[in-house]
Amino acid sequence: MLIKAPYLLFLGEAPDALAAKTSIGVAQWRPEKCVGQLRLPGCKADAGFPDMDVAAAAKAGAKTMIVGVVNRGGVVSKAWSDVLIGALAAGLDLASGLHNKLADVPEIAAAARKYGRTLFDVRHPDREFPIATGARRPGKRVLTVGTDCSIGKMYTSLALEKEMRAQGLKATFRATGQTGILIAGGGWSIDAIVSDFVAGAVETLAPANSPDHWDVIEGQGSLFHASYAGVTLALIHGSQPDALVMCHEPGRAHMRGLPHYKLPKIEDCIAANVAHARLTNPKAKCIGISLNTSKMAAKPAERAIKSLADRLGMPVCDPSRGGVAALVKKLAKMK
Amino acid sequence: MLIKAPYLLFLGEAPDALAAKTSIGVAQWRPEKCVGQLRLPGCKADAGFPDMDVAAAAKAGAKTMIVGVVNRGGVVSKAWSDVLIGALAAGLDLASGLHNKLADVPEIAAAARKYGRTLFDVRHPDREFPIATGARRPGKRVLTVGTDCSIGKMYTSLALEKEMRAQGLKATFRATGQTGILIAGGGWSIDAIVSDFVAGAVETLAPANSPDHWDVIEGQGSLFHASYAGVTLALIHGSQPDALVMCHEPGRAHMRGLPHYKLPKIEDCIAANVAHARLTNPKAKCIGISLNTSKMAAKPAERAIKSLADRLGMPVCDPSRGGVAALVKKLAKMK
Repeated sequence: MLIKAPYLLFLGEAPDALAAKTSIGVAQWRPEKCVGQLRLPGCKADAGFPDMDVAAAAKAGAKTMIVGVVNRGGVVSKAWSDVLIGALAAGLDLASGLHNKLADVPEIAAAARKYGRTLFDVRHPDREFPIATGARRPGKRVLTVGTDCSIGKMYTSLALEKEMRAQGLKATFRATGQTGILIAGGGWSIDAIVSDFVAGAVETLAPANSPDHWDVIEGQGSLFHASYAGVTLALIHGSQPDALVMCHEPGRAHMRGLPHYKLPKIEDCIAANVAHARLTNPKAKCIGISLNTSKMAAKPAERAIKSLADRLGMPVCDPSRGGVAALVKKLAKMK
Repeated sequence: MLIKAPYLLFLGEAPDALAAKTSIGVAQWRPEKCVGQLRLPGCKADAGFPDMDVAAAAKAGAKTMIVGVVNRGGVVSKAWSDVLIGALAAGLDLASGLHNKLADVPEIAAAARKYGRTLFDVRHPDREFPIATGARRPGKRVLTVGTDCSIGKMYTSLALEKEMRAQGLKATFRATGQTGILIAGGGWSIDAIVSDFVAGAVETLAPANSPDHWDVIEGQGSLFHASYAGVTLALIHGSQPDALVMCHEPGRAHMRGLPHYKLPKIEDCIAANVAHARLTNPKAKCIGISLNTSKMAAKPAERAIKSLADRLGMPVCDPSRGGVAALVKKLAKMK
């Protein structure tokens, strides 16, 4: 799956930034791939690009319109389908992170056929994957893991890739969820893959590479999340990570979506992740922590970062405050 | 998915018992549900039931023909499709454990429609499942786990159910793989379920029950198998097992299908399984071992069983030698 840039970002009538977080994420992490945004009346979100219609975007060179916005109730409205079909008619592909497939909307599927365009429904892998072999492959890999879901694994992975490249390392972000895929322009939504093939899909996603190249693999779920831990374990095994970065948010009251489950102790979570990672890569280790302090004021955040670093004896960073240079320094030293 | 008994067992032209192991397993564990077997010329396998054609089976009351045999190259031959369509015409449903779906063979699908019969492709779950909630539910559950795949988890589970019932306990075998499903007459092939939903499917498979009822849940894979551990972990979390029975085969050279992976130490394997099980059931414990000594002579097998029991301080049984009464005794004591 390879989505063609440049992009027109579709924000629909998103009532806030959260509803359009996927389009905004693409704008934030891949601005060089974006030419404009398309907003419908009532839209309160802003990806920071010039507003334009599909004709103007096509003229500006856009190859794909990114449908990076949540729709209401999983239904593509008339207002949306007019714009989506207009984009296809103007020569753009569509790449969507929606739960429901664009390919299942008859008039959109028909328009794609009529205009010879491609529909990328990135939540729905459209190929078969092999069973994982567990065979060691060259190249280095760092995987983000977490004490919980939705705690900053994608953001941390993208920050690592950016900083690694800035420091002259060879690094490629490997996306495993819909927002990451739309940012990367490729990848597989691993929670939508048949369970037997998840580890094999990850082996395919982060294949053999040159010995000095790093894949930065986007983590999913948590080994301590009662709904999704199986996905996480398959991802760990398929990644064969040399390095793990543990993502955590201080003060979170319970596991996401599970009010009766507390978060694990970070030490226990590190130990479990490292132990499982060593099955497929005996040298795996946790090189540091990404601490999501977005809900804290600056001073308490600073104290939390320092105190955790002292307690664990490893670098602790908040990518959105001080960057991840301390983590990349550790990665750069790994031979 | 509920497959109607009694059954006619289809063995095709199976060259040996292994090729027909599913039909033979149904005959072994559910003889009361079987009326006969149907073998094609050249068949060398025997499920121990009278040979009959579909007309005789229908007359004897059969409601379903079990296609419990491996076919060559995944293709349904002309000889097979004649028999399968004949069964549908005679009023039987078909239940198949084949990789490829009967529903995808046009002439078989057409015949099922024509005669108003049902095709059960048990490797391919045909419904949607919820995300696991992790909420505790009443009823007791025992799950078989293993140091490796294909080590005796289904056999052990069926032996436990049988012995528990013989001792007057309420017990229900819950199948998670195709052979188990054909034996139980229902269940879900969890390795074919989309990864996000595996734990939720298991919550559905082994639902709330009366406090003195035991679900005996068929395990899959191993936490230490680089290809399938994610499936295993989701199964553990969804099962919320009160008791684990660890299945092991002494002397196995390497993990199944992975020549470069050794088996874990059984102590480490028990510790990892119990630790993960305690996420969704804090009282989970390993109550004993099922040791597969099928490749050993009687005396060495006896010594291996005794020595492991001494080392681990828990009951060790080989279901196919001495039965599983010692394991059931432990289960019966659990309140």
